[in-house]
Amino acid sequence: MLSNNQVKLYSSLRNKKYRGIHGKFLAEGEKIVLDIIHARARLFKIHSLVATSEFLKTQPQAILKDIPEIIEASDSTLEKISSLSTPNKAILVCAIPEYLPDFKQISGELSLFLDDIRDPGNLGTIMRTADWFGIHHIFCSRESVDVYNPKVVQSTMGAICRVRVYYTEPEYLLQQLRNIQSFPVIGTLLEGENIFTAKLPETGIIILGNESRGISEKLLDQIDLKLTIPSTRQGDEVSESLNVAAAAAIVMAEFRRNQAAYSK
Amino acid sequence: MLSNNQVKLYSSLRNKKYRGIHGKFLAEGEKIVLDIIHARARLFKIHSLVATSEFLKTQPQAILKDIPEIIEASDSTLEKISSLSTPNKAILVCAIPEYLPDFKQISGELSLFLDDIRDPGNLGTIMRTADWFGIHHIFCSRESVDVYNPKVVQSTMGAICRVRVYYTEPEYLLQQLRNIQSFPVIGTLLEGENIFTAKLPETGIIILGNESRGISEKLLDQIDLKLTIPSTRQGDEVSESLNVAAAAAIVMAEFRRNQAAYSK
Repeated sequence: MLSNNQVKLYSSLRNKKYRGIHGKFLAEGEKIVLDIIHARARLFKIHSLVATSEFLKTQPQAILKDIPEIIEASDSTLEKISSLSTPNKAILVCAIPEYLPDFKQISGELSLFLDDIRDPGNLGTIMRTADWFGIHHIFCSRESVDVYNPKVVQSTMGAICRVRVYYTEPEYLLQQLRNIQSFPVIGTLLEGENIFTAKLPETGIIILGNESRGISEKLLDQIDLKLTIPSTRQGDEVSESLNVAAAAAIVMAEFRRNQAAYSK
Repeated sequence: MLSNNQVKLYSSLRNKKYRGIHGKFLAEGEKIVLDIIHARARLFKIHSLVATSEFLKTQPQAILKDIPEIIEASDSTLEKISSLSTPNKAILVCAIPEYLPDFKQISGELSLFLDDIRDPGNLGTIMRTADWFGIHHIFCSRESVDVYNPKVVQSTMGAICRVRVYYTEPEYLLQQLRNIQSFPVIGTLLEGENIFTAKLPETGIIILGNESRGISEKLLDQIDLKLTIPSTRQGDEVSESLNVAAAAAIVMAEFRRNQAAYSK
């Protein structure tokens, strides 16, 4: 049984401030809860599983044995904790990990910088795509949506177990990376080189702009390689831009295309 | 001023049933309202603009002159009509268009079939990407989310003015298309030919599966060309799939890649 204090504590974790104070976050819903439990390697620890007796009964014992605390709760208690509108049978309480970026390693890889991505679904989808294409590090401006927001956690579909997300000032980040070696800063814009024909580097950091205003003014000067996803619509009108998670998917696929061409 | 009956009518349009009865839908929020008003060619008629005096004052007269009915409303009235959680300064009431697919034309193009896409944001994002890549026709199974759902309308960012969406039985659709000419049915699955190396046709219909279960069993047999977006992650674990709107973006970009390579 959960005490009233526990219910209060866990439900406070919907709020970024309290996630910071308690160093914990929630993963809500059977699918993501099972994804996290099943993940053999994961970037964070599990504290507790809060679930209905029905959910617990249907899980093999082997799956639950490594969870430090398992608490049975009624649907109505779970509803009190949950921030999602769809009812959940299981909620996982996890520890917010405290990893720091290894700039030396990162400078030899491809990574992303998200410049004020606000929509939880967009961040989750970008993390999921990054995971698919073996991109392990995502930097976010401090104004970006919090990765431990329950909606983000849910929409990563388990990628949160593997992709590291850091919040940082872009100036500091780019300075760190450029201190190590010549490191291309790549941006996707409406005016740039055609991404389908450009020669793409194997390492670098790709900047993706905010949903409404794109890449911020102060970062535009920092970009070494400006890329565009050309529209192929014939006619006089076209959407003014792509959704940022869709654009991110096309960009990541394009960077990984040559590598991916021989992977199967 | 809006009468109580009008408020009741307009707010009922959040609901698919009443959209069907009245043949109208809502576009909510300044950005999409202006996108639709500005679109020179659009697939549907505007009935009314309901907006705050503040919004109306800031619009140039030329923009508003072709709108049949303009109604000033208070913030609280707009809130009553709106289905979105963020407050809106403007709502457009539009006529649901009654277009039918021209199978002869469509058989010479690339189009999409969405097999039970349930998330409004996913449908909106797929329409926006389709618009970008000049894909004009999207078919949806009848269980898919309604394109006139306010959240879909908003997330299309204006693509709803240009991309035609039809609800149909897939069996009927594929039969119609195959009656005209040999017409490839393309599916993206976890097991298929590597999309980055496969020879892709210039016409055909691409099937995209439901968020949880992928392409339905009964459609799998119909697929002539099975494609996979290969994961390039090294290591033993990876997300089990991509978000459907991200996968759709990669697939559309790949089909348009050769064409797009020479468009700029």
